[in-house]
Amino acid sequence: MTSEAPQPLVVFTPSGKRGRVAPGTSVLAAARQLGVDLDSVCGGRGICSKCQVTPSYGEFSKHGITVREDALSGWNSVEQRYDDKRGLKEGRRLGCQACIQGDIVLDVPPESQVHKQVIRKSADSRPMVMDPATRLYFVEVAEPDMHEPSGDFERLAQALKDQWQVEGVVADLSLLTKLQSVLRRGEWQVTVAVYADHTGAAPRVLEIWPGLHEAGLFGLAIDLGSTTIAAHLTDLETGEVRAASGLMNPQIRFGEDLMSRVSYVMMNPGGEKELTAAVRKALAQLSDALATEAGIDPSLIVEAAVVCNPVMHHLLLGIDPTELGQAPFALAVSEALSFPASTLDLNGINPRAQVYMLPCIAGHVGADAAAVSLAVAPEQSEELMLVIDVGTNAEILLGDRTRVLACSSPTGPAFEGAQISSGQRAAPGAIERVEIDPVTKEPRFRVIGVDLWSDDPGFAAASAATGVTGICGSGIIEAVAEMRMAGLLDATGLIGSAEQTGSPRCEAQGRTHAYLLHDGTEAGGARVSVTQGDIRAIQLAKSALYAGARLLMDERGADRVDRVVLAGAFGAHISAKHAMVLGMIPDAPLEKVTSAGNAAGTGARMALCSVDARRQVEREVGRISKIETAIAPRFQEHFVAANAIPHATDHFPELSAVVDLPDVRFHSGGAESGGRRRRRKG
Amino acid sequence: MTSEAPQPLVVFTPSGKRGRVAPGTSVLAAARQLGVDLDSVCGGRGICSKCQVTPSYGEFSKHGITVREDALSGWNSVEQRYDDKRGLKEGRRLGCQACIQGDIVLDVPPESQVHKQVIRKSADSRPMVMDPATRLYFVEVAEPDMHEPSGDFERLAQALKDQWQVEGVVADLSLLTKLQSVLRRGEWQVTVAVYADHTGAAPRVLEIWPGLHEAGLFGLAIDLGSTTIAAHLTDLETGEVRAASGLMNPQIRFGEDLMSRVSYVMMNPGGEKELTAAVRKALAQLSDALATEAGIDPSLIVEAAVVCNPVMHHLLLGIDPTELGQAPFALAVSEALSFPASTLDLNGINPRAQVYMLPCIAGHVGADAAAVSLAVAPEQSEELMLVIDVGTNAEILLGDRTRVLACSSPTGPAFEGAQISSGQRAAPGAIERVEIDPVTKEPRFRVIGVDLWSDDPGFAAASAATGVTGICGSGIIEAVAEMRMAGLLDATGLIGSAEQTGSPRCEAQGRTHAYLLHDGTEAGGARVSVTQGDIRAIQLAKSALYAGARLLMDERGADRVDRVVLAGAFGAHISAKHAMVLGMIPDAPLEKVTSAGNAAGTGARMALCSVDARRQVEREVGRISKIETAIAPRFQEHFVAANAIPHATDHFPELSAVVDLPDVRFHSGGAESGGRRRRRKG
Repeated sequence: MTSEAPQPLVVFTPSGKRGRVAPGTSVLAAARQLGVDLDSVCGGRGICSKCQVTPSYGEFSKHGITVREDALSGWNSVEQRYDDKRGLKEGRRLGCQACIQGDIVLDVPPESQVHKQVIRKSADSRPMVMDPATRLYFVEVAEPDMHEPSGDFERLAQALKDQWQVEGVVADLSLLTKLQSVLRRGEWQVTVAVYADHTGAAPRVLEIWPGLHEAGLFGLAIDLGSTTIAAHLTDLETGEVRAASGLMNPQIRFGEDLMSRVSYVMMNPGGEKELTAAVRKALAQLSDALATEAGIDPSLIVEAAVVCNPVMHHLLLGIDPTELGQAPFALAVSEALSFPASTLDLNGINPRAQVYMLPCIAGHVGADAAAVSLAVAPEQSEELMLVIDVGTNAEILLGDRTRVLACSSPTGPAFEGAQISSGQRAAPGAIERVEIDPVTKEPRFRVIGVDLWSDDPGFAAASAATGVTGICGSGIIEAVAEMRMAGLLDATGLIGSAEQTGSPRCEAQGRTHAYLLHDGTEAGGARVSVTQGDIRAIQLAKSALYAGARLLMDERGADRVDRVVLAGAFGAHISAKHAMVLGMIPDAPLEKVTSAGNAAGTGARMALCSVDARRQVEREVGRISKIETAIAPRFQEHFVAANAIPHATDHFPELSAVVDLPDVRFHSGGAESGGRRRRRKG
Repeated sequence: MTSEAPQPLVVFTPSGKRGRVAPGTSVLAAARQLGVDLDSVCGGRGICSKCQVTPSYGEFSKHGITVREDALSGWNSVEQRYDDKRGLKEGRRLGCQACIQGDIVLDVPPESQVHKQVIRKSADSRPMVMDPATRLYFVEVAEPDMHEPSGDFERLAQALKDQWQVEGVVADLSLLTKLQSVLRRGEWQVTVAVYADHTGAAPRVLEIWPGLHEAGLFGLAIDLGSTTIAAHLTDLETGEVRAASGLMNPQIRFGEDLMSRVSYVMMNPGGEKELTAAVRKALAQLSDALATEAGIDPSLIVEAAVVCNPVMHHLLLGIDPTELGQAPFALAVSEALSFPASTLDLNGINPRAQVYMLPCIAGHVGADAAAVSLAVAPEQSEELMLVIDVGTNAEILLGDRTRVLACSSPTGPAFEGAQISSGQRAAPGAIERVEIDPVTKEPRFRVIGVDLWSDDPGFAAASAATGVTGICGSGIIEAVAEMRMAGLLDATGLIGSAEQTGSPRCEAQGRTHAYLLHDGTEAGGARVSVTQGDIRAIQLAKSALYAGARLLMDERGADRVDRVVLAGAFGAHISAKHAMVLGMIPDAPLEKVTSAGNAAGTGARMALCSVDARRQVEREVGRISKIETAIAPRFQEHFVAANAIPHATDHFPELSAVVDLPDVRFHSGGAESGGRRRRRKG
């Protein structure tokens, strides 16, 4: 070919990147020249097969080229050997072997991309793109030379620089102790896992294997809640979740809720050490269980990302949380942290594994809220979005492209089924859905673990295993809202008597009434009622939640929101209509109230799989305006005003369009003592 | 003062830096503006007293100014309080309190300089300038604010940035766990120790104290030898050695010399763990002992610098040294290393203390040789300098401004008194100096621990405590050289018989002879002779040493050197003349053969006290040309040729000018069996 002949034109899809390359250039080299995201671990040696592409032949008027049959060099022996051994998909070529001889269109399939996008279920959130801190590199290391003495590690570092442009790597002593034997076993060909994050710290060699390492790399996305600890074992190359598991937080024995744990430490100076040891042990158990479930060598787990609330954050790190229990709620450290997993006694995994802890937003708004922000991305929303993550505290974000605000509201544990007379955690046997017929005032319900409604034929048989054991958070919300819609409850939250409501299920209890949802005592089961005390507990919780949201709206100068996103396991289970009837969340079109699922867990997984996600969450947490409910006078005002159910129907025009709330008003005061007996007759 | 009036002129001595500052500027601020090295820990709050200066008044024609009495603001209450409490030297002012009102000359005394030069005994070596990685900073930290929530650590980091321009600090979790209580105890005024080295790693907060910390900071300079471990507890502010101590290397029980320890590991796979544990335990003991001796809190020890040979380097780090025992002598890692002291189980000192290990030059030329290079600075020499550090291996450097070469030569342990019939380590009772009368052939000697010569009156009484127990390395060298000069030994190294030499001390031993230095058996002591076997051992050792030096000279194209520097404890004790008579070192003018003392230890102390020294040694080690004796054919040639004592007198013209070597030649072969008995009569 003379120098005048035009160089071949290469078009890569789906990126659309195109350019001319010298004839004979390999597809992999062409991709690098043109900035196309084409993976390779072995660096073009034809052994890792990560660089597969699919060439297309024929006329491409869109690209203005015609691809001839000989546009790529012929199928070669390396490709044949790989195909024989592992099988290459029809039409695929190895990018490091196929050389460009003429104009060509090449498709890079998702599995050949480093920065592949991971498909997520929830549409209205940030896409998850793989950009892991830890990557594999296959290198050929120069053998030692007495004439040019240098350490094996220095020659490994040089190889990473020359072959991968990874400069200035460092390593722990524990890696150096195994380096020489691995290099020699691999006959100077090794694969290294290098951790390079966004902090500017030197890239760190976490692991080394002789030859090509093909067993992958994994990470743990950990959502460390006050009550439960959930973790996802995630493939750091594909983003795929390979195993998921959860455990109760063993700190519960020191206190059900966070404040009792803080109190425990206040009363027992140094007691944080016990709490820290307990939660670290649980994390170690969880990681063992996940590796076993996925059938992987635990030493392949090289990273973990952790999200949690501020108290759990401190207790996991071994920091006394006392300051978080009193104004001004000062965190010891709020920024994101990266450190060796061994610091957390997470010793079952790779000894050099790295942990990333997401930043805390404020003393009451933790890394879990930061993770929700990362997953839901309110700062990218055109609409004014309210994001609520309900737990013992509710974390609330309000914002759009222009500004995002955050606060935490002390809802207490009522939404988790605690402080409710028949309350329980969301577990098999718990009532999770409730409907009350507005005419007959009779309820029907569903329990967790059973697919039938309680009035469906066969429910008794189907629920025999679980029983009906109590009512969980989403159940109590639906029950209260349904009672209000059925006229059993007035706007002030008072349960009517049997006489007032016409329902014998409204039983007298001292001076108040309770609505009987289920009487399983005859079958040896539970009696599940909604008492006046339960209503009051829910009113307090929902007022706190609403007041928090309202405070942010005031701060923003907004009197309505365009969209409500409910995050968390709880958020995934509650019904928008019932939450709004309760006045738990501000009014919004029902179809604009959606669930983001376990957004905190998703945020943890994003941070685990992407350095860019870490950058994003750190940047965004720095930008979020933090509002402290404890010192905002308007919070108290909103809290008091939000007591009614919902607190004022003229604040809920969207709801009024779909729900007709009875205009009942019960008098308070003692019910007749015979009320209960009378109802039993019915 | 109008704007036209010239600003006061300030002249700082001894730096000579000068410039004009706005009237009312404090001396400390003026020093900072003019780039004058004036210390301050409290940042100008009048509490640390580090910024003391001595103003001079009167006419200074040299500087072209007249200093009036009111050139500085008056003595103020802060200075008075400090003077009352601690006492301020006559004529001194606090630089943060005294403000400049007119032209002034200010002297900065050495103790007020950060980069103070530490006086060293040896003149011909690099000056030692304080530039420690860890420094103290007193800061006032903003209190937490619920309206602007941020972690206590982030506010500490902000204070360091605002008040000290120390940006982007990080900290270990163990620091974060104590941060909140210290900040509150100090009422938001704390002193932090920040470690910032030359690696580009983020500055690290190592320790925090409430209020102003005045108990100082310390470091350990550790010279980890095969036989002994020496450490100097050094003040990181002044460079002063506060305590020095040494221990036998407990690895001796695995093998006297390095190769036997390497063999131990080869024969006992995993055995390096025992050796590593042994040496780490010794280091921990040593640091405890030093802190006790100096009477300091061991947690004030925040750094350590370590020098050692490559095998000790690997064994300390926990790396299997097998590769160092066989060609190509590959180090696992050769570059300088910085890591937490806890990695070395050095747990008695500050838990966040940092270790710096100097780089190795090659598989046989370790961090100890690098430290010698740092202390002696051959690369700055105008003359061609030969630097020899004698141990079990001799490390040899040859060079000047243009180029420095290095090699290691396998001298074996003879120079340390091992493999010598009456040999012993340099300890009380060991003969260290020898003279033999060329006429009478009678010896006299000195032993370590006794100030008298053996023929001085009172020697018997003076040496009663130590006895005469054997002969150490410097003693055997002098003995052999003196024997050669006295005609008891011929140039081939053969000891003459009593008949040949005329000395009854030349006793027959089988087919060879031995020279009796001391017979203390009647007093229950030792019989110390120099045997033919001892002569052969010394010949092998000196030939190796000479051959190594000669190899470097060949490489450099030099047939003579301008200067010989003997490093190490051994180098400090041997006499230049005797070494040259032996042919241990190349010929040089006797006055150009000097000792650099314990240069490796000095290098360790320099690296401990100065980040710039670390930069220098790393740069220089990268530049040094490494010569591997094991693969240099000329090394063998030189080794064989250097067997004679000295190997050829025409190679030693400088020596010939001062020493007259008898031209004797003894025949080898059996001595009469009666030789010994006959001599006993005399």
